[in-house]
Amino acid sequence: MNMLLLTATLSDNTYKVSGRQLEHLLDVHKAKIGDSFKVGHVNGLMGTGSIVQLDNEQAILTLDLSLDPPPSLPLTLLLALPRPKMLRRTLQTIAAMGVKNLYLINSSRVEKSFWQSPFLSPDAIEEQLILGLEQARDTVLPTVHLRKLFKPFVEDELRDLINGTTPLVAHPNTEESCPVNTPQKVTLAIGPEGGFIPYEIDKLVDIGFKAVHLGPRILRVENAVPSIISRLFPG
Amino acid sequence: MNMLLLTATLSDNTYKVSGRQLEHLLDVHKAKIGDSFKVGHVNGLMGTGSIVQLDNEQAILTLDLSLDPPPSLPLTLLLALPRPKMLRRTLQTIAAMGVKNLYLINSSRVEKSFWQSPFLSPDAIEEQLILGLEQARDTVLPTVHLRKLFKPFVEDELRDLINGTTPLVAHPNTEESCPVNTPQKVTLAIGPEGGFIPYEIDKLVDIGFKAVHLGPRILRVENAVPSIISRLFPG
Repeated sequence: MNMLLLTATLSDNTYKVSGRQLEHLLDVHKAKIGDSFKVGHVNGLMGTGSIVQLDNEQAILTLDLSLDPPPSLPLTLLLALPRPKMLRRTLQTIAAMGVKNLYLINSSRVEKSFWQSPFLSPDAIEEQLILGLEQARDTVLPTVHLRKLFKPFVEDELRDLINGTTPLVAHPNTEESCPVNTPQKVTLAIGPEGGFIPYEIDKLVDIGFKAVHLGPRILRVENAVPSIISRLFPG
Repeated sequence: MNMLLLTATLSDNTYKVSGRQLEHLLDVHKAKIGDSFKVGHVNGLMGTGSIVQLDNEQAILTLDLSLDPPPSLPLTLLLALPRPKMLRRTLQTIAAMGVKNLYLINSSRVEKSFWQSPFLSPDAIEEQLILGLEQARDTVLPTVHLRKLFKPFVEDELRDLINGTTPLVAHPNTEESCPVNTPQKVTLAIGPEGGFIPYEIDKLVDIGFKAVHLGPRILRVENAVPSIISRLFPG
C-alpha cells in the first residue's frame, strides 16, 4: 500500500481509520501520534493525513488534501471473466494501471461456475479495486459492469459503446500487431484462457473491432493486461 | 499450458511423457492415442507430438519438430529478490515474456529471509521457468543468477555487464520517462516493494544507469515487469 484510500465521507478534514487500514498503519508503518501518511479521498483529492489520536481500535487523522489523482486512461476494457482466483488479482491490476471502465463479459471458454463466484459481489469487487488504487496512488474507483451473455451484449450494447473509440481485440492468431502509443480512445477486448472462439472474434469484427496480436508469445491475462495498456498508453 | 516443453534428451524422435505433463494431457485435453499436441524441446525446436502409446503411467509421443522458438529479448533484467510467493509468479512471467537473462539481486528493502526460500533452489526455479515457457510457447530457458550482495555486484560485475547496452533503472521519483520501442540492448533494474533506497540508485547512476519512470502510478513488480518489457520491446 502506497496510500490510504479513505472511502467514508469526510467531515471537518478529519477521518477515522480502523480495520485493515489501521492494521497496516500499526504493523507495517509502526505508526505513532504525529506521523504523516499519504492519503486520498475516494473519487477526490490526494494529500497527507497526520495522526492526532491513536489506540488499538482507531486512528484519527487530520487531512491536507490538494493534489489531483493521476489522469484516467482513455480506455474501456472488456475482459472475459477470469477464474475467481485470478479475478481478484486482475481487479487489483486494472485499478492499479488506471483503467476506469471495465466490462467483465462472457465467452464460450468462460466456465459457467465462474459467474457464481462470491468475488463478483459489489463489495468484493470494490475491495480489490481499493487495494489496486492504494498500490498505485490513485483515488478514482473504476466502474465494473457484469455482462453474462455475449451475443446480446455485443449486438445491443457494444455497438454504441465503441462509438468514437478504436475497438481492438487481442488475439494471438492474427497478422496485425497492437498499436503503440495511440492518441485515440480505445475499447479493448481480451479473451479468456484459450482465447475467444472464432464465432466470438467474428461477432466483434462484424461490428468494427480489429484483431491485433501482442508479439509471438501467448500471454496470460495477468500479463496481457499490463502489457497491452503499457504499449497503448506509455504516457 | 499452450505447449509441452520436453526437457529430457530426445531419442529417435520419440519422447516419453509422465508426471505433471501427462496429467495435463489426460485431465485437460482428455488425450487419447492418435491425438497431436504442440511440443517443444528445451533450448531447441518446436512442433507437434502425436501420441502413439498411452496408459496411466506414461504417454509415448512421436515428434515432428521444425519451428524455431520466438526471438529472445535483447534484455538483461536485474530484479530485487521478490518475496517467495511473488518470486514464483515473477519467474513464470519473465519466462513467458521472453527474458533470457535474469539477475536476482539484493537491496536494502529485500528481507534477508527471502534468500532462504526453498523456491530459490535450481530445480524450483527451473520448474517455474518451464511453466512460463509452456504458457508462452517458447523453448529457450532463461539463465537465472543469484547475487546476494548489492555493492560488490554493482562495483565488480555490473560495470562490465552493461557494456554495449542502455542501462535503465525503474524509479517512481524521477523526471525522465521510460523509452518506448528502443532499438538498443537494454539492462533494466527493477527495485523491491518500496523501491531502491537513494544510496542504491546513486550507485547505479554512478556506473551509468539512467533512472526512468513508468508514468504517474506506482506498479507492483508483477505489473511493472510486463509493462516495462512491453513498452521497451513492443515487437
